[in-house]
Amino acid sequence: MASVQDICVSAAINLLSALAFLLAFAFLRLQPINDRVYFPKWYKKGIRASPRSSGPSVKKFVNLDFRTYLKFWTWMPAALRMPEPELIDHAGLDSAVYIRIYLLGLKIFVPITILAFAVLVPVNWTGSTLDDVKDLTFSDIDKLSISNVPSGSLRFVAHIAMAYVFTFWTCYTLYKEYKIITNKRLQFLASESRRPDQFTVLVRNVPPDPDESVSEHVEHFFCVNHPNDYLMHQIVYNANKLAKLVEKKKSLHNWLTYYQTRYERNPKQRPRTKTGFCGLWGTSVDAIDYYTAEIDKIVEEEAAERERVISDPKAIVPAAFVSFKSRWGAAVCAQTQQSSNPTIWLTEWAPEPRDVYWDNLAIPYVELAVKRLLIAVATFFLTFFFMIPIAIVQSLASIEGIEKVLPFLKPLIETEKVKSVVQGFLPGIALKIFLLLLPTILMTMSKIEGLVSLSSLDRRSAAKYHLFVLVNVFFGSIITGAAFEQLKSFLNQSPSDIQESFQLTTLTIPKTVGVAIPLKATFFITYIMVDGWAGIAAEILRLVPLVLFHLKNAFLVKTEQDREQAMDPGCINFASSEPRIQLYFLLGLVYSVVTPLILPFIIIFFAFSYVIFRHQIINVYDQKYESGAAFWPDVHRRVLIGLVISQLLLLGLLSTKNAAQSTPLLLVLPVLTIWFYRFCKERFESAFVKFPLQDTMVKDTLERATEPNLNLKAYLQDAYVHPVFKSIEIERAPAFDEEENNPLVSTKRSSRRSSKPASGGVTPEPV
Amino acid sequence: MASVQDICVSAAINLLSALAFLLAFAFLRLQPINDRVYFPKWYKKGIRASPRSSGPSVKKFVNLDFRTYLKFWTWMPAALRMPEPELIDHAGLDSAVYIRIYLLGLKIFVPITILAFAVLVPVNWTGSTLDDVKDLTFSDIDKLSISNVPSGSLRFVAHIAMAYVFTFWTCYTLYKEYKIITNKRLQFLASESRRPDQFTVLVRNVPPDPDESVSEHVEHFFCVNHPNDYLMHQIVYNANKLAKLVEKKKSLHNWLTYYQTRYERNPKQRPRTKTGFCGLWGTSVDAIDYYTAEIDKIVEEEAAERERVISDPKAIVPAAFVSFKSRWGAAVCAQTQQSSNPTIWLTEWAPEPRDVYWDNLAIPYVELAVKRLLIAVATFFLTFFFMIPIAIVQSLASIEGIEKVLPFLKPLIETEKVKSVVQGFLPGIALKIFLLLLPTILMTMSKIEGLVSLSSLDRRSAAKYHLFVLVNVFFGSIITGAAFEQLKSFLNQSPSDIQESFQLTTLTIPKTVGVAIPLKATFFITYIMVDGWAGIAAEILRLVPLVLFHLKNAFLVKTEQDREQAMDPGCINFASSEPRIQLYFLLGLVYSVVTPLILPFIIIFFAFSYVIFRHQIINVYDQKYESGAAFWPDVHRRVLIGLVISQLLLLGLLSTKNAAQSTPLLLVLPVLTIWFYRFCKERFESAFVKFPLQDTMVKDTLERATEPNLNLKAYLQDAYVHPVFKSIEIERAPAFDEEENNPLVSTKRSSRRSSKPASGGVTPEPV
Repeated sequence: MASVQDICVSAAINLLSALAFLLAFAFLRLQPINDRVYFPKWYKKGIRASPRSSGPSVKKFVNLDFRTYLKFWTWMPAALRMPEPELIDHAGLDSAVYIRIYLLGLKIFVPITILAFAVLVPVNWTGSTLDDVKDLTFSDIDKLSISNVPSGSLRFVAHIAMAYVFTFWTCYTLYKEYKIITNKRLQFLASESRRPDQFTVLVRNVPPDPDESVSEHVEHFFCVNHPNDYLMHQIVYNANKLAKLVEKKKSLHNWLTYYQTRYERNPKQRPRTKTGFCGLWGTSVDAIDYYTAEIDKIVEEEAAERERVISDPKAIVPAAFVSFKSRWGAAVCAQTQQSSNPTIWLTEWAPEPRDVYWDNLAIPYVELAVKRLLIAVATFFLTFFFMIPIAIVQSLASIEGIEKVLPFLKPLIETEKVKSVVQGFLPGIALKIFLLLLPTILMTMSKIEGLVSLSSLDRRSAAKYHLFVLVNVFFGSIITGAAFEQLKSFLNQSPSDIQESFQLTTLTIPKTVGVAIPLKATFFITYIMVDGWAGIAAEILRLVPLVLFHLKNAFLVKTEQDREQAMDPGCINFASSEPRIQLYFLLGLVYSVVTPLILPFIIIFFAFSYVIFRHQIINVYDQKYESGAAFWPDVHRRVLIGLVISQLLLLGLLSTKNAAQSTPLLLVLPVLTIWFYRFCKERFESAFVKFPLQDTMVKDTLERATEPNLNLKAYLQDAYVHPVFKSIEIERAPAFDEEENNPLVSTKRSSRRSSKPASGGVTPEPV
Repeated sequence: MASVQDICVSAAINLLSALAFLLAFAFLRLQPINDRVYFPKWYKKGIRASPRSSGPSVKKFVNLDFRTYLKFWTWMPAALRMPEPELIDHAGLDSAVYIRIYLLGLKIFVPITILAFAVLVPVNWTGSTLDDVKDLTFSDIDKLSISNVPSGSLRFVAHIAMAYVFTFWTCYTLYKEYKIITNKRLQFLASESRRPDQFTVLVRNVPPDPDESVSEHVEHFFCVNHPNDYLMHQIVYNANKLAKLVEKKKSLHNWLTYYQTRYERNPKQRPRTKTGFCGLWGTSVDAIDYYTAEIDKIVEEEAAERERVISDPKAIVPAAFVSFKSRWGAAVCAQTQQSSNPTIWLTEWAPEPRDVYWDNLAIPYVELAVKRLLIAVATFFLTFFFMIPIAIVQSLASIEGIEKVLPFLKPLIETEKVKSVVQGFLPGIALKIFLLLLPTILMTMSKIEGLVSLSSLDRRSAAKYHLFVLVNVFFGSIITGAAFEQLKSFLNQSPSDIQESFQLTTLTIPKTVGVAIPLKATFFITYIMVDGWAGIAAEILRLVPLVLFHLKNAFLVKTEQDREQAMDPGCINFASSEPRIQLYFLLGLVYSVVTPLILPFIIIFFAFSYVIFRHQIINVYDQKYESGAAFWPDVHRRVLIGLVISQLLLLGLLSTKNAAQSTPLLLVLPVLTIWFYRFCKERFESAFVKFPLQDTMVKDTLERATEPNLNLKAYLQDAYVHPVFKSIEIERAPAFDEEENNPLVSTKRSSRRSSKPASGGVTPEPV
């Protein structure tokens, strides 16, 4: 058990490391050479140009203007200054709403903290149970927690009342936030300019027809069933193989550039490479000739494959993008059922062209159902039993395991020093690798489920990750202290023991966990400081993109366009970062009544993250798609899941404190919360999944009045073509160009492009 | 514990009473005087006419043709003879699918019974645990059950394998049945002739507008947002008060007729009545004059109210029936969201005119959400704590209670004989009354929830009743032997004891129930015979309608039309009878592995009910509405709930038999079952809730081709007018007339009307 002093030390360490990260960031971002790492969003938009073009050569790489170093903290107010409507214009609604999650955390927890410190802390402090116990397992922190209140005391009335107040406050804030975000989404959708997906519906599971091709079948079906609105359709080619060839060509191109750069720098010796795996073995050949020949070969192959895909009817998948004459027609088709057989002619609103996940468009219905079952079972096992394979790997990675598999290493690892390193380090590394790979594993699982847009893939992965965090980080930590101890001890038991202890655990979870909660407060405080403070500060430093950019810059970049591509702005990693925020909501809600001392730490996390991510979405991140905050219902639901968990745990805790008569009173809370969830779902969710006809009608009418001669067919002609068929601008999907001519992103600042960078100076604070 | 002999005696008694009912039915139905009680459906359709019109007068009342008595059983094959397509034409899809539930029971349980008797009975019989025990608590029947297999025996492999086989067979049958019924529904909808609800959408929560009336607002909104399809709309008046006046007038008319009849029979003395409550006190007046005056008064009142409703804008509720030019337009409007605010302009497919529940059309959105929460909580308390108020009433209804409230009765009830009757009879009567009232209570609760059609009210009440039966009849009986013992014992405990024993019960339900199941087999066998055999046989006798018809006939009937109205054909009471069938499914599935001996009794129930209800829907019932088997998804879900319960109970049972290693094997079953449920839901359910555009388009095109000059507006003009505004034919809703000109009901037999009854003979077997 940590004392107050321990916590202070830990806080100091973490604060210092966070400060170090921030100082490093403040220094690095002022160097012109790193400009493209810390302000890539402005480059992508063309508002900021390379500082290389003018000025003395040293200034190109290092910032010598020392006055700017004194103002190293200015990015913080700068990040906060941009008003929200402009932020939505600049970074999109997804990003703007994402940082509102942090703001929501502040809105919920600041009043709760004040109330908890005003009411609960005095009540707990004067409870004085622990003064009598004089036990080593209790620390000063526990004196501020509910543990200090004697069993069966009337003081619990305060805790129950506060549980009610906190529940109502949380629900009220969530309701207001849901309302605001719904309005923002509707405004955003209403103000958007013309986009192909507004007119288009994705049709899947087109039934096979013996007499007609997929294209004819689709055309006939929609001509008959939507006679007034049908405009055209685009068939989907199965171009997965072609996409792989294109990818390979790109990599070969990179190697060729690399060797050409080497040859230019050292013209005396032509670089050589080996033909085998990764250039490590095989016959040695001239590298430039070799890669030139390889590229020629693959260009031919690609042309043949391209020919095959276009001409072979088997390369056409039974899905199509069907476009309508009006947004109204598309809205009708997307929301209605076409055929009496609900497994064919499935229509849904088409994702944005750049949001389409092309690989999954062709999965038949029954296969999809089976895949979903398998993934559901796999998710269950991954969540609850992931320690088993890791334990096996760990046992292999022990000293004995290594000696068995690689006996020649025996003398080396038997050395005392090496041995201690192996023993201390190896068992942990398997777990670390697993946790690093986890988001990728979850994303792969979501892809197997057959979702057709990147945004829905992100949302589905986030749901899986949330379950994992909930079970393994939260409950794992609470029940066993360290997240994985419990499962490890299971592994040492006989099967029947496992079953019994498992049954015992599940039957008594509320009580067991209720007792354990107050004891784990210090553990979670430390966790918040490590993961939430220092971890978030590391985010802004962008160490990995920084290194990669300079490596690419040294070996691959030749033209200004290459440099453009060498930038890796990254994007908000919704699938793994949102579930992490949810953990903080959960911790805050659970401990608000039990150990209010944890709340200030959570508030600092939310405030700090808000500033940092606001800076990042303004200056760095470049989102891959824009879903119009479609993820919000998930966020809302998960906060409420956290609230219900906190209510049930409080119920379990109080029933062990001889306050069982409070059970009915506390049971009311989850019932009300679940009802509130359903109420909000009915009230707001449709704005995120459905498309009101009234709004489409307004936009259609407006457009017909302002642009009576619009040729919609020409506009939509190539919108939904697989990216590999846009042969020349292979890296930029059509909607990307769309985006650029879009008022959504052309902010007021576009005029600066010609003025500021031309003055030769660096503009570290563009906001 | 009942022995085989006890069961045989009980079976004999119940078989005899069932036989007595059937014989009474066979006798009574042959009497011409009862013809309208036992064949009302044919009268309603006008295919059968009163036998009074011709023949000798005795023959009008009593059937003297003794040969017909010898063929008293012929109704059974007659009931089975009508082929299903004709049955659907004759009685509607709802009824035809309802009796298919019994058929489904046969399809599931006949093969299961054969397999269980071939495999499990020998395995159990030779288990011979009970031979050694020689305990009085076990009977011969238990020798056939799983109780006879020793703990930890390998024989349980047979039971687990059978659990798998039964699960797969049940799912397979359910899948096939769902598919058949979906096809039947689609065929039925496709073959239906033109009906107003095909073109009409019910719009609720029309937002208030300061400048426009509801009618104008609706017209403008749909003219703008459905410009090609909107045809017209009908506003809804709040005519609940007017409907009450009309109802009262009808009752006064009945009294007038009654006194007039009395006067005609005894012209010497004019009948007199008292003006007070129910004619029991008050001043005595001439009855005919009094009621004539009363009717005049109410006719005036009604006219004034009718005037007020039509002219007062406040009498218009914010809802409307909006009709479209095509079925396609209506399908689009019903399936899409109209406004970005999902709480206004709510559209759903309009129910049939006669299916509309008019009182609920005006409830605003938030009120609805609160009401639903309250009803959910009320349902919970009704289901789990209904014994508390009944116990209070019971304690009041005891000897002491009566003596306290009505002391003057003391000498009477202190008599020994009266006392024993009171003690034996009164406590039970409160419970009996409650159980009789339960369907009405549940229906009232469903009405409060704000559903707008009678069919959905029936479905919602059935869901509540199912929960009640599941908790109180099934689990109640199993846990405590008699359904209500447990709750009674709760009432005698202190509050904290209750809580503890409640927690204990909930934590160990699977085990407790698992142990109790085999012991309750004989109880359920008796239950099946009383409720399922004799109870169903009583259904066909129609004792209550028989008595009521003859009473009405004696006092109220003057004209042929009065006689028409005196008939009470009744209808399938879906809300309470479907959950009762589900109990048999549940019992069959639970005991199929545990005590297969119960299965033959269930098979007899299903077969017997099938024949009887087939007879009833052909000859008696007159459905109030036709929902096209919209209830099937509920039936399907509840059978699967029963299946999952049976799997969990088997799991609990085996874990007490030292066969815990079977737990993972058995856990697979509920997972698969739930997945199967979701699969079926996605695959079929949309046919019951959505309206495919393709089908509507086909019907529209066909209609346009066959009837190019159809005046749809005139056709729909008065379709959705509140029944009280159809002043003259007050008892017949418009759709009723519709129905009569409908090929749906005019069967081949319509030609017989003129031939057979005109011959003067009785036609007891119309089929």
